Amino acid sequence: MDISDWRKRIDELDGEIVRLISERAQAAQAIGLIKQAAALPVYEPGRESQVFAHVRAINPGPLPDKELLHVYERIIDVMRSLQTRPKEADSGA
Amino acid sequence: MDISDWRKRIDELDGEIVRLISERAQAAQAIGLIKQAAALPVYEPGRESQVFAHVRAINPGPLPDKELLHVYERIIDVMRSLQTRPKEADSGA
Repeated sequence: MDISDWRKRIDELDGEIVRLISERAQAAQAIGLIKQAAALPVYEPGRESQVFAHVRAINPGPLPDKELLHVYERIIDVMRSLQTRPKEADSGA
Repeated sequence: MDISDWRKRIDELDGEIVRLISERAQAAQAIGLIKQAAALPVYEPGRESQVFAHVRAINPGPLPDKELLHVYERIIDVMRSLQTRPKEADSGA
């Protein structure tokens, strides 16, 4: 496989990754609405540590744990913003 | 669905996301080796813009483009480090 074949594969993978991150965001949004209704805090450090531990446990490589967690810190960040303002995200603002 | 059901779903999604990001990293590593052999530069701003444009084009929501691109900036960052030092990543260092 040459560089352009690998890039085609990467574009396919990005299609799946974007779909799954979006599905994860929908789930986070659903949790945000439940929390809002029950006046529960958005930020739950215990749950975030759980997510990071899970990611570390299932990492098959070749990315070192540190780098993969780097990506997940960003994922968690954007999910948290979405939970803080679910309506704004819906309107595309 | 209550919060714990949604979290189970999120854990499943994380399993798939981690697998796909790792597969993407393998592809980036393969490209890194081809580039190394051909003495091509690792950093290619044109290709990176292409990836960002693709992600923006296929974003189904609910994440605003800006937030999704935020995640992808991090993904591209860790892939670039991997291409710069493929051996180091293999050894787990």
